[in-house]
Amino acid sequence: MNTVYSIINGKFILKDESAILISDLAIQRGYGIFDYFRTIKNEPVFLEEHLNRFYFSAAEMFMDPGYTQSELKDLIKLLIEKNDIPDSGIRITLTGGYAADGYTLSRPNLLITQSAFSFNHNNFNKGIKLSTFQHQRQLPHVKTIDYLMAIHLQKLIKEKGADDVLYYHFNEITECPRANIFFINSKDEVITPSKNILKGITRKKILNFPGLKCLEDIVPFSEINNFKEAFICSTTKNVLPVLEIDGTVVGNGKPGAITRSIYEQLLSVKEK
Amino acid sequence: MNTVYSIINGKFILKDESAILISDLAIQRGYGIFDYFRTIKNEPVFLEEHLNRFYFSAAEMFMDPGYTQSELKDLIKLLIEKNDIPDSGIRITLTGGYAADGYTLSRPNLLITQSAFSFNHNNFNKGIKLSTFQHQRQLPHVKTIDYLMAIHLQKLIKEKGADDVLYYHFNEITECPRANIFFINSKDEVITPSKNILKGITRKKILNFPGLKCLEDIVPFSEINNFKEAFICSTTKNVLPVLEIDGTVVGNGKPGAITRSIYEQLLSVKEK
Repeated sequence: MNTVYSIINGKFILKDESAILISDLAIQRGYGIFDYFRTIKNEPVFLEEHLNRFYFSAAEMFMDPGYTQSELKDLIKLLIEKNDIPDSGIRITLTGGYAADGYTLSRPNLLITQSAFSFNHNNFNKGIKLSTFQHQRQLPHVKTIDYLMAIHLQKLIKEKGADDVLYYHFNEITECPRANIFFINSKDEVITPSKNILKGITRKKILNFPGLKCLEDIVPFSEINNFKEAFICSTTKNVLPVLEIDGTVVGNGKPGAITRSIYEQLLSVKEK
Repeated sequence: MNTVYSIINGKFILKDESAILISDLAIQRGYGIFDYFRTIKNEPVFLEEHLNRFYFSAAEMFMDPGYTQSELKDLIKLLIEKNDIPDSGIRITLTGGYAADGYTLSRPNLLITQSAFSFNHNNFNKGIKLSTFQHQRQLPHVKTIDYLMAIHLQKLIKEKGADDVLYYHFNEITECPRANIFFINSKDEVITPSKNILKGITRKKILNFPGLKCLEDIVPFSEINNFKEAFICSTTKNVLPVLEIDGTVVGNGKPGAITRSIYEQLLSVKEK
């Protein structure tokens, strides 16, 4: 196995020794943002979009990454070369930094880590089951490190025999903790929640696919059983059919035709 | 200056070198809990209450501190002896641990840190100004490390010329990010929000003070200007009069008589 490195504040560090001081505001106060993209055959996928969002998240949280977007891209390319993990996920994290008083934003720490990741095509046919939970993520438009509720709900999800949780708030469906959701109605319209969500890169790609009647709109929770297909999408999951929500079968309980066509269209622009 | 140590998973580490790996779920996913208490003349203040809450928080978040409450108390006493910082704050943090997949709860990391802290009596007469903001903390009854919104709001608080933020949700006042709030009405009743808050140790002490008409109740946001006194309380602040909320003076704009008597009563049982 190769030796794997991370980059902390511009320096290469052995991954197994990559650490930050516990005075960092991520550990003290859960304050940080990140982004995550894949490499396929050592080529970053949708890198520009992920970096754009990373810098947007940093600005929204009043943090300066300390590198220009172009410098950061160079650092990422160096890491890809050095590690040589062709199929991987790369995570860039920016934390609130070392705060003397444990509360005031300081110079952020920039962490870049890489792990092997291969996409599993078999997951598509298996699909997933979702369990709903009423919760609104704070600052949902920013990719923060806040997954407190998501991790806390892992036990409940298991108990319910589900694979993941779907958040809603009052009568609006929003998103899964790490994925966006799309629904397909009887008119073959492909609808995804328009607000109070993190706008995923895969979501954006799908919205721009030609030949689809895609729309961003409010999706009422009360209509959750009225769709013929549903799927979630993310950087790691690509497109995964939702076959059951809260124990109720979606459509005929099998991956639908429109979901499959979107999945294949995504693979054609992404997985070579 | 003394050499200062922390304790990480039972081991003494120089404070300036106290670090955890970046695969910890606190850094990856903002998942952790903590508690914080003071020492005065090397004696922990209200230690039992803080440790009770720490173990409660850990259990609520499905984490095992790895030590019994009695063992943890022994570790804390060793740290107090070794560091000899008579007037201090001690923070015990429990994080989600090193997760191979960056998502699944693992064996928690237990971090104990100590910093010098002296209470400043002058703060009482200065009082504070609050700015309100609509927000409901997630899992409010647990002392998690989630202060994402609080840190994010620091800029806004400064712009408004306030000292801290007071959260409300729809028509209910809840709490400040690091303090509970009390209001005193024209009948000399001392009222503090009853739900959707973290129940502070100082709050609990005050509720049990003899001679006060104290009650836990819903405090409607629409009544915020109808009180003759208000104060916040916490482990580090003790009791601080609130002299202004959103630019409107509370009472006559000076620390009130009942607030002062509660402050003095608290000092008499705490600061020797």
